[in-house]
Amino acid sequence: MRVRKKHWANPLLNAHPEIVIHNPQERVGQWCSNLSLRNLHVEIGGGKGDYWIEMARKFPEDCWVTVEKDSSVAAFALRKMLESPQPNMFLINGDAKDLNLWFDHQEIDVIHLNFSDPWPKKAHHKRRLTHQSFLQNYQKLLKNDGEIQMKTDNMDLFEFSCQIFSQNNWICMDISVDYRRNSHPEDAISEYEQRFIDLKQPIYRCVWRKRNESK
Amino acid sequence: MRVRKKHWANPLLNAHPEIVIHNPQERVGQWCSNLSLRNLHVEIGGGKGDYWIEMARKFPEDCWVTVEKDSSVAAFALRKMLESPQPNMFLINGDAKDLNLWFDHQEIDVIHLNFSDPWPKKAHHKRRLTHQSFLQNYQKLLKNDGEIQMKTDNMDLFEFSCQIFSQNNWICMDISVDYRRNSHPEDAISEYEQRFIDLKQPIYRCVWRKRNESK
Repeated sequence: MRVRKKHWANPLLNAHPEIVIHNPQERVGQWCSNLSLRNLHVEIGGGKGDYWIEMARKFPEDCWVTVEKDSSVAAFALRKMLESPQPNMFLINGDAKDLNLWFDHQEIDVIHLNFSDPWPKKAHHKRRLTHQSFLQNYQKLLKNDGEIQMKTDNMDLFEFSCQIFSQNNWICMDISVDYRRNSHPEDAISEYEQRFIDLKQPIYRCVWRKRNESK
Repeated sequence: MRVRKKHWANPLLNAHPEIVIHNPQERVGQWCSNLSLRNLHVEIGGGKGDYWIEMARKFPEDCWVTVEKDSSVAAFALRKMLESPQPNMFLINGDAKDLNLWFDHQEIDVIHLNFSDPWPKKAHHKRRLTHQSFLQNYQKLLKNDGEIQMKTDNMDLFEFSCQIFSQNNWICMDISVDYRRNSHPEDAISEYEQRFIDLKQPIYRCVWRKRNESK
C-alpha cells in the first residue's frame, strides 16, 4: 500500500526499539531462541499491521516478524501495535530483498504474503513478491518443511503465483478460490481483507512447500 | 450428468459405427495415423457432446474422441453429432477405467475433463476423475509433453484437483479462477457451461503437464 509521507513516522519508529528492530542482522538465527518462542513467521509487505497483531495474539507461543518497506506505513502499523503491545511481535522497516541478511538459512517456518502489490503491468511482474527471483530467496530461508502462505483478492496475481510456484518445483499444500466461504478461526482478517469480504469478492489463498529434492 | 434411460439409446449407438467406436481396442496406437490426423484429444465424461462437436469443427486437423459411460447420455451426444457429422469426431460408450485398453502408452496429446461429477461426499472422492488413481492411468497414456485440461464450475473439485495434481508431481501450465473474464476463441462453450456464465458464476480452469523425471 502507498500512503503520503508522514513526518512523525521515523521519530516514532526510532522511539520503539522493543518492537521495531533496527539491526535485524544482529538477530540472525536467534529470532525464536532468544525468547523461547516456537515457530518463526515472517510477513512481507505487512501494511498497516492489523493482521499481524491479531495473529501474534492468537499464537503467543510463536514469533511474528513483519517487514514493511514504507516507513510511513510501518509507522501506522507500529501505532496500532503500541495499543496492545506483545512480546512476540516485531517490525522491520526494510526491503524484502534484504531478507537473507536478517534470517539464517532454514530459520523461517512460514512466510506470509498478504494482499501483495499485484504490479499489473507485464514489465513490472518481476517486482511481484512471488516472482521466481524472490522464491529462490525464500527457499533458502525456509525450513525443509517450511511453507509460504499467500492471500490475495487479485485474480491475476493469484494465477501468476500458482504457476510460478508449481513451475519452480513447489508443492501445493492447500488452495482456495473463495477462502471465506468456510470459517477459519485460525486466520486473522485485516481491515483491508474485510473490505473485499463486504463487497462479496472472493479471497484467494494458497499454501506451498518446497519439494524436497533428496526424496 | 444423469438422465433417465432411453429405450432408443442402444439401437441408435449401434446404428452409427462411423462415429461410435464399438471396439476401441482395435484402434490402439492408430487413432490419428488411420486418418492422417495431427493431435489426439480425449474427453472423459463427454456429456451431451456440444463442446466436443464445436472443438472438432474448430480443429479439423485433430482427432477428437469423447468417452461417455451412460448410454442414454452418449445417445444424446450422438444425435447432436449426426446433425453435423465430421470425420475427426468419435464417441466411445464406455468407462474411463478402461482407457488403457483403448489407447497406447504415450498416444494422447490432451485429456479433457469438462465439468466432471464433483462427487461431493468425502467417501466418494476416489470416484473423482482427478483422483490419484486416475492420474496414474492418464500419465501412461499421455505423450511426454501431453497435458490435462480441466474446466469446472465446482470450487471443491477444482481445489481438490489442483492439490492432487501438484502433490503427484504435475506442473501447472495454466490456471484461471475466472476463465471467461477473458475471451478464448480457441475453446468451445457447452450449453452446460453457458448456464454458469449466464448466472455470472466463475468458470475454473487449469492445465497440467507431467513433470519429466529424467530432467
